[in-house]
Amino acid sequence: MTEFIPPGTRHIDLPSPFPMKRGGALHGARIAYETWGELNAKRDNAILIVTGLSPDAHAAANAGNPEPGWWEAMLGPGKPIDSEHWFVICVNSLGSCKGSTGPASINADTGELYRLEFPELSIEDGADAAAHVVHALGIERLACVIGNSMGGMTALALLIRHPGLARNHINISGAARALPFSIAIRSLQREAIRLDPQWNQGGYDETHYPESGMRMARKLGVITYRSALEWDGRFGRVRLDSDRADEEPFGLEFEVESYLEGHARRFVRRFDPNCYLYLSRSMDWFDLGDYCGGGDGLDNEEQVRRGLAAIRVEKALAIGVHTDILFPLQQQQEIADGLRAGGADARFVPLESPQGHDAFLVDIARFGPAVAGFLDELRTG
Amino acid sequence: MTEFIPPGTRHIDLPSPFPMKRGGALHGARIAYETWGELNAKRDNAILIVTGLSPDAHAAANAGNPEPGWWEAMLGPGKPIDSEHWFVICVNSLGSCKGSTGPASINADTGELYRLEFPELSIEDGADAAAHVVHALGIERLACVIGNSMGGMTALALLIRHPGLARNHINISGAARALPFSIAIRSLQREAIRLDPQWNQGGYDETHYPESGMRMARKLGVITYRSALEWDGRFGRVRLDSDRADEEPFGLEFEVESYLEGHARRFVRRFDPNCYLYLSRSMDWFDLGDYCGGGDGLDNEEQVRRGLAAIRVEKALAIGVHTDILFPLQQQQEIADGLRAGGADARFVPLESPQGHDAFLVDIARFGPAVAGFLDELRTG
Repeated sequence: MTEFIPPGTRHIDLPSPFPMKRGGALHGARIAYETWGELNAKRDNAILIVTGLSPDAHAAANAGNPEPGWWEAMLGPGKPIDSEHWFVICVNSLGSCKGSTGPASINADTGELYRLEFPELSIEDGADAAAHVVHALGIERLACVIGNSMGGMTALALLIRHPGLARNHINISGAARALPFSIAIRSLQREAIRLDPQWNQGGYDETHYPESGMRMARKLGVITYRSALEWDGRFGRVRLDSDRADEEPFGLEFEVESYLEGHARRFVRRFDPNCYLYLSRSMDWFDLGDYCGGGDGLDNEEQVRRGLAAIRVEKALAIGVHTDILFPLQQQQEIADGLRAGGADARFVPLESPQGHDAFLVDIARFGPAVAGFLDELRTG
Repeated sequence: MTEFIPPGTRHIDLPSPFPMKRGGALHGARIAYETWGELNAKRDNAILIVTGLSPDAHAAANAGNPEPGWWEAMLGPGKPIDSEHWFVICVNSLGSCKGSTGPASINADTGELYRLEFPELSIEDGADAAAHVVHALGIERLACVIGNSMGGMTALALLIRHPGLARNHINISGAARALPFSIAIRSLQREAIRLDPQWNQGGYDETHYPESGMRMARKLGVITYRSALEWDGRFGRVRLDSDRADEEPFGLEFEVESYLEGHARRFVRRFDPNCYLYLSRSMDWFDLGDYCGGGDGLDNEEQVRRGLAAIRVEKALAIGVHTDILFPLQQQQEIADGLRAGGADARFVPLESPQGHDAFLVDIARFGPAVAGFLDELRTG
């Protein structure tokens, strides 16, 4: 319905038509991106960042937009992803509402919003679009592709579908396939939106907007993005002050409920519901086992192992945290093991962050050195 | 709205008025219960079972109702809770809709359903009501009180408020206090019901019924009752056959989604929404730290430890499973440690069940011997 494009965001047009993996094609589609640092003369210092479901391309402050970005502490001059050495590109995912073409964009063929007329979206489509951006910026080979969360899936899709495009890879709290617990959570988030009468089969507007569905989806998201361990210390059983308590029957009473409420309030009108549905489902569909090369009779675990082993990178780093219930640690272990089976120097780094799936956004004390150390090795070694 | 009372269920009237912990009182209230086995001449072989949120008093087949109960494999002649040796009582919780008085019952004062006029319900009220049933059955002292899930809270409340009523205790996947992750989950379940326009501030009927809210609440419940580990093995990424797939936009596609759908469908019209809200909130409020005896300046963990240490039982067993995200294992450890600090011979038994919080209902291979062994010791030692 509405797009939310940070100032300073630039765009690159996708080829038109841009074929979609599950059928159909986009016409006149484009990808939003931002950059940090300078591409060197050899054009071998480029890093691509692909994101989770909701972030835009504004990962950190830059010349075009001095506002802090969603990974501000990680990216910039002298930071773990050091823009004094690297030329860093961050793309907004295809299908999002933050500058790249998605269900909330105008369909050039009709002059109307796409809404549910947007073709079925796969993680692979986002990867193909990101690969196009890299090429369009004059880069033949990335030094590294970094993917967080959903972006960890996108990065793997890019590596398998565009061999040679990236020499190295960092996968942060990502997965090579969706497993049933996370499918169940996302399915329930989508159901919350779909059950909201105001969703209206995707035909909402600003006045008739599926606010209840979006708040439920976001709250469930936040519950699964963090961890019980973190919340025990952070909220415990602390109650709201009486002046903040909710007078409604069964209304909010505990700090943790207010925290969720705040997150929901900040999100519901800042992300397009149809885009949410498309991106959410694309994660459920993702399975690197699809690239196992004729192993139809194998179990999914072995298919995924073969898919990962078919990827060619030099060095790889898979990072995860013990408290992540959405992309659990064994999924990052699976990525490292599979890439190693394919010949990569692949490391698995489990971190003790209490913050769960979202730890990479906040626990820079642990994630920063892990990422910086790996990138330093690429530069010096 | 509707009560769901299994055939053969009996009732015991509560004192009228029956004062409620947070204020108000019930008039003409009653508790549904069933029994197994015979009370011996010394009246010292009685076991009380207090349940989770949704079960009725029909834990297993008995003379009054030969249908299998919700804990059929655990309770009966020759079973882990052996009715050839023990006289077993199971009560339906106060506030439920399965025979005990609750928001779906007629308020004797008005002749109308209580709905939201039901007084605020605490775990302690359920414990006091269960204690009354025990006394009314002519039992001065229970050999053991067994509580599962919410019932683990109820059992602790019974022990602290009715000293001497039970000699021993088994706490299964229970907790001495609600922690923020489980509060957040339950708050979201309640919000799903409250947001459903058909809930109508508790004023629904069969025709205008908050079905969407209840299905969301139940699905979220089932997600947190089981575990990711179990589902990886059970569902993996298996799709529905095309004839079972859902044609709606973003409809069901994976087996795990269909499993949740089946659970929701079986539940939504079989449990009263207002009762669900009351019982759910009672868990959030529960904090054995309230009984720490003047430790207002202490942190909640120490308050709870003192509350537990104020309980007097001879032997106790706290059982939990590694995969429980709703009542995590450290909460059963906390119970065992606290009871031991109060002088009990208290054991903590973590089990390797993959089934999460609900394991006690299904993993009888692990839970059965743990419970049977403890009860045998009580009988022989």
